[in-house]
Amino acid sequence: MQEVTEIRVDGKLLSRVVSGADVTGVTGLLENYPHVWIVYDANAAAHAEKVEAALRPTGKLGGILEIEVSEEGKTIDTVLGLQEWLLGAGADRDALLLAIGGGITTDMAGFAASIYKRGIRFAFIPTTLLSQVDAAIGGKTGVNFHSLKNMIGVIRQPDFTYICPDVLDTLPARDFRSGAAEMLKTFIIEDGGNYEKAVKLLGRINGGGSLADNADELRRLISAAAAVKAGIVSRDQFESGERRKLNLGHTFAHAIEFKARETGSDITHGEAVAIGIIQAARLTDKTLAEKIRSDFRQAGLPTELPFPLESLEASMLKDKKAEGGKIHFVLIKTIGDVYTQDMTVTEAIEKL
Amino acid sequence: MQEVTEIRVDGKLLSRVVSGADVTGVTGLLENYPHVWIVYDANAAAHAEKVEAALRPTGKLGGILEIEVSEEGKTIDTVLGLQEWLLGAGADRDALLLAIGGGITTDMAGFAASIYKRGIRFAFIPTTLLSQVDAAIGGKTGVNFHSLKNMIGVIRQPDFTYICPDVLDTLPARDFRSGAAEMLKTFIIEDGGNYEKAVKLLGRINGGGSLADNADELRRLISAAAAVKAGIVSRDQFESGERRKLNLGHTFAHAIEFKARETGSDITHGEAVAIGIIQAARLTDKTLAEKIRSDFRQAGLPTELPFPLESLEASMLKDKKAEGGKIHFVLIKTIGDVYTQDMTVTEAIEKL
Repeated sequence: MQEVTEIRVDGKLLSRVVSGADVTGVTGLLENYPHVWIVYDANAAAHAEKVEAALRPTGKLGGILEIEVSEEGKTIDTVLGLQEWLLGAGADRDALLLAIGGGITTDMAGFAASIYKRGIRFAFIPTTLLSQVDAAIGGKTGVNFHSLKNMIGVIRQPDFTYICPDVLDTLPARDFRSGAAEMLKTFIIEDGGNYEKAVKLLGRINGGGSLADNADELRRLISAAAAVKAGIVSRDQFESGERRKLNLGHTFAHAIEFKARETGSDITHGEAVAIGIIQAARLTDKTLAEKIRSDFRQAGLPTELPFPLESLEASMLKDKKAEGGKIHFVLIKTIGDVYTQDMTVTEAIEKL
Repeated sequence: MQEVTEIRVDGKLLSRVVSGADVTGVTGLLENYPHVWIVYDANAAAHAEKVEAALRPTGKLGGILEIEVSEEGKTIDTVLGLQEWLLGAGADRDALLLAIGGGITTDMAGFAASIYKRGIRFAFIPTTLLSQVDAAIGGKTGVNFHSLKNMIGVIRQPDFTYICPDVLDTLPARDFRSGAAEMLKTFIIEDGGNYEKAVKLLGRINGGGSLADNADELRRLISAAAAVKAGIVSRDQFESGERRKLNLGHTFAHAIEFKARETGSDITHGEAVAIGIIQAARLTDKTLAEKIRSDFRQAGLPTELPFPLESLEASMLKDKKAEGGKIHFVLIKTIGDVYTQDMTVTEAIEKL
């Protein structure tokens, strides 16, 4: 059985988030596409092969391409490589590009499809927890440029994002926790009674509980988080208001990641977000920040700033969301209630 | 006095085509933008300087950049150069990028703005007749890739396109005629009593009449052609139906231009379109094709194929509008009444 959340803007269906039991279930969503082209992260080869095997008999598989994926390779050159592949293999404007992989793969494939022949359709099978609850929903596509994350891209919705729990079985624990941070972030923004449940579940898994033993609750919470994001995107696709809430913790996180790249430190996006959320919480309520810190620790997430705050200032100023020198900081009133406030970086740092 | 044609999709205002008396009149349209960045074709420097002089006292000029423009330089590298300029100079997401120049400039600037920080606003002052009646209206942006025209890009509407006749005074006669071809194309698609008037006017100008002596009629016809295009784009922004009519003559034209680049021949887009329209007309009505040939000759346009038809076949097959091996050819029933029909290239060539 598949659950569907629609992303509608002004009444128009732009995208669907569909959750199903396993990865081959995607074929049911592909019936109306004459030609499907698959690009997948080498790490997701096992899942891509299942989809390929299911799709090949239908005769609609135009081509399939494996790519090596890394943050360093998230560049316009990689996207141009995808253009060459599609062009060389004769992909028409009626092609659907189906990306199978984590957030980097879906970001790049979405961007590549958005600019190929001025835009072909695309869809995603996110294979990491992070991309299932966040990156693969909402149409933000793009690549890094001059060490700045996602500086070049577009906002354009995939036809659908297909979420299935079976692809997480092979996900390294650290990547799973990275996604857990975005899931917790989502429920801090819109609780619906899920935040405490997510803390408990993630605590159990971090404590050694298997995904299989917790599959039902995990799938329910992934769907719930994806639905929260889909709802916010429906109301504010181009991030002129409410969608900014999804950047909770991200101003700090992007600066931490920038500094980490500069210094060769190893930190994942989700880890940076976890640390960033705690800093964001400290801007309004230091007691709440300590509770969140304790919750995040249970989930196995880091909670301490790896660099002195002052050293993050310069990269925070380059945040692409800065407008007129001020940044839209997302502040936490309480779990399930956040709001944005414009502050300069200096004003923010003084509060910490 | 300014005339305004709106481009609305599903009731939503996406873009405006505004025609005014002279180039500085654009400042009235810039009042609500906090920061304006100008990029202009070196050939349009005189016009850009006027806009800069009018804008500088307002304090909203973020930066201004001159670029050398050519079909060979219509590449992703040039667009990335614009990203670097905007980024280095600190353009925020509230920036408006105003492009002043012909179709290559507006195509590249529109694409650059569409992908910078996932999309900032942009507007155009087209300085060629071709871009005033066609290229700068409708939101098709992009660059060439592997010798294929506009292979990479997006469809995204400028906030406005500002059309003024004074910028045409310095336009070389050959470029003027190139624009004349797109104007005639527009009226073949939707006449409104303008086609014969345009033939007469363009004949007078080709015969030595000055733009100044014909200014009123020229301005009226430019506005009328721009309004036809705006109307078609409003009804079919993403070219799934009616908008395809605007490609009248373009399947042949793109192939001619491709071959011309390959052989180092010199032909403008408008000239290729003129020749292409006559070939398109021959597909349905050879008598009508001869009448159009005679009209186009009056306007000073070339009308004979510069390459054997067979040699164009391969590049026609690569047309980015090809879907499933067939191409949407635009056929002419009579002046003011065209329709699309799917044919293979071979089928088309057999009819000629």
